[in-house]
Amino acid sequence: MSFNPISEIGEFGLIDRLAAIVAPTKNNLPELIEGIGDDCAVWRTSDSMVQVATTDLLVETVHFDLLTTPLHHLGSKAISVNVSDICAMNAMPCYALISIAAPREMPVEMLEELYRGMAHAATLYGLAIAGGDTSSSPAGLTISISMTGQTTLEKVTLRKGAQPGDLICVTGTLGGSTAGLNVLMREKATMIEQLRNNEPYDKNVMAELQEYAEAIRHHLLPGARTDIIDFFNEEEIVPTAMIDISDGLVADLGHICRRSGVGAHIEESRIPVLPDARAIAEEFQQDVFDWALSGGEDYQLLFTLPKEQYDSIASHRDITVIGTITEAEEGLLLTDIFGMTIDMAEMKRGFDHFGE
Amino acid sequence: MSFNPISEIGEFGLIDRLAAIVAPTKNNLPELIEGIGDDCAVWRTSDSMVQVATTDLLVETVHFDLLTTPLHHLGSKAISVNVSDICAMNAMPCYALISIAAPREMPVEMLEELYRGMAHAATLYGLAIAGGDTSSSPAGLTISISMTGQTTLEKVTLRKGAQPGDLICVTGTLGGSTAGLNVLMREKATMIEQLRNNEPYDKNVMAELQEYAEAIRHHLLPGARTDIIDFFNEEEIVPTAMIDISDGLVADLGHICRRSGVGAHIEESRIPVLPDARAIAEEFQQDVFDWALSGGEDYQLLFTLPKEQYDSIASHRDITVIGTITEAEEGLLLTDIFGMTIDMAEMKRGFDHFGE
Repeated sequence: MSFNPISEIGEFGLIDRLAAIVAPTKNNLPELIEGIGDDCAVWRTSDSMVQVATTDLLVETVHFDLLTTPLHHLGSKAISVNVSDICAMNAMPCYALISIAAPREMPVEMLEELYRGMAHAATLYGLAIAGGDTSSSPAGLTISISMTGQTTLEKVTLRKGAQPGDLICVTGTLGGSTAGLNVLMREKATMIEQLRNNEPYDKNVMAELQEYAEAIRHHLLPGARTDIIDFFNEEEIVPTAMIDISDGLVADLGHICRRSGVGAHIEESRIPVLPDARAIAEEFQQDVFDWALSGGEDYQLLFTLPKEQYDSIASHRDITVIGTITEAEEGLLLTDIFGMTIDMAEMKRGFDHFGE
Repeated sequence: MSFNPISEIGEFGLIDRLAAIVAPTKNNLPELIEGIGDDCAVWRTSDSMVQVATTDLLVETVHFDLLTTPLHHLGSKAISVNVSDICAMNAMPCYALISIAAPREMPVEMLEELYRGMAHAATLYGLAIAGGDTSSSPAGLTISISMTGQTTLEKVTLRKGAQPGDLICVTGTLGGSTAGLNVLMREKATMIEQLRNNEPYDKNVMAELQEYAEAIRHHLLPGARTDIIDFFNEEEIVPTAMIDISDGLVADLGHICRRSGVGAHIEESRIPVLPDARAIAEEFQQDVFDWALSGGEDYQLLFTLPKEQYDSIASHRDITVIGTITEAEEGLLLTDIFGMTIDMAEMKRGFDHFGE
């Protein structure tokens, strides 16, 4: 028997292998509609209702950096990213269970601040924090959140279901989270440099951060788009497929296409970019479209809709049509701002290659 | 503002402070029946049905030791302890979400073995593993399991509800898990000693472990008592209060009494002790009743029932009546095998004091 470190097969390779092992357990309950492979698991609770459920593990140094993340914000974001997964199923959140593992020496007051952020966000979204578990941790803070949501069998929207000809739509703006992260990383480097040189921390720098506040807010306090789910509900819109943008527009559109067995063609010039992100990208001598396309963590919704339903979303000022679903053979294409058409699979690889 | 390390207020102090912060979110959903403070959270899903949900965080070095725990067993136990929490509500398990954080250098094959154990247990209990999350970890393996279960509003059983005069009943036998743990800890010490002295590991020691197999199995592979929930269902028994024995009989009976506002009087001579645990305790020069009363991790069910319903359980060979619920003023009393009556609050403190 040979042994292979996880790092060799990567996260998606690992998920595939573990999912294959637990797949047979799906047959234990015929009410299960969707298991591993979407934003949430989905099961029927009655003839017409479904419950959706998601879980997220946040590990210090892997998912967050306590040096640049206020705990209240971290708590709020931890709730928001799970609500975002619920929204991606066209459902509304109901209950959350929260577990933490924390070092014994961590001040209780820090955890209280974290939980105040969670409670604040929970009330914002109308969900109840119903339980959890606490444990000591040998190293760093780990947060685990599980959340259930609810919708009807008719409304529940999976990643699969996109059809050639469907419009590709995105909510809000993209690139803000990556812009904010870049500012915070630069700030952290400055702070560490000053500490190393025994210089006092320059308070003016903090004041200067004000001009980046919008982008930083997009990174530290992303909001889940429950408002869009309400809008869908009111307008009786049911997308053919949906996902939330956590990995980046290109990667998440790729998930929809793979699961739906379709291709996609989007236009760079139509992608809604956060204006502040544009200014910050210029300052960092980066391409803001790289941030918008591959940056991730914007937690906007990406969905597809039959062309005939364009009128139903046309008037919504926060929904943008960025392209069209195509046949699978056409692949994932992007027409850039110069009119060049690129294979997004290649582009993504290119970005990774030059990435940090 | 003063800062206090978590270690100063302990786990229960921490839970109290965090629960107070999230308590107001309960009002966001009137369907919530029970939040933090029971084995599971409980909410109504229809006029007659309730869903229960629990979550457990298992941290390497805190909850398990990979040196003495085969990963298949660990996976199976991780599922069982959550099913046990579902059973403690008089409910049956439905869906589980599983997250893991693992070091990048951990062999994929180890995690596959862990997941095979989980899938095996899931099928045993008829539940579906419906989703999860994976992450890298800077140190050690962390497992987070969330699980939902289902029962009716009439059958759901909380920790509160025990009435003076009720019988106190326990399923199966106690002390086995602590006996098995003691054997494994001694084994580990021997192994480490031999490694330190560069001696080859003595294979005969492994063979000798056979005689402790039953106790070790109780520690590594405890089973959740879904069979008891089936029995309650068939006999239309609804306990007045129930909990699973994870912290130890005395501590868990204490939880029922506190939540129900009652006292309890149990008799040591009636406590069902695993025969093998008795022999091992003798070998370790320990009191097997200490293990049965305070050892924990036996995952048996502890429940209370009106005296008039004694006949309904009398014929079940795996349910033992160990005492009676009393008025709160009488406290938690134990009559030991010598006929002495002791305050369990004192006894517990005594045990902790001399404990490892």
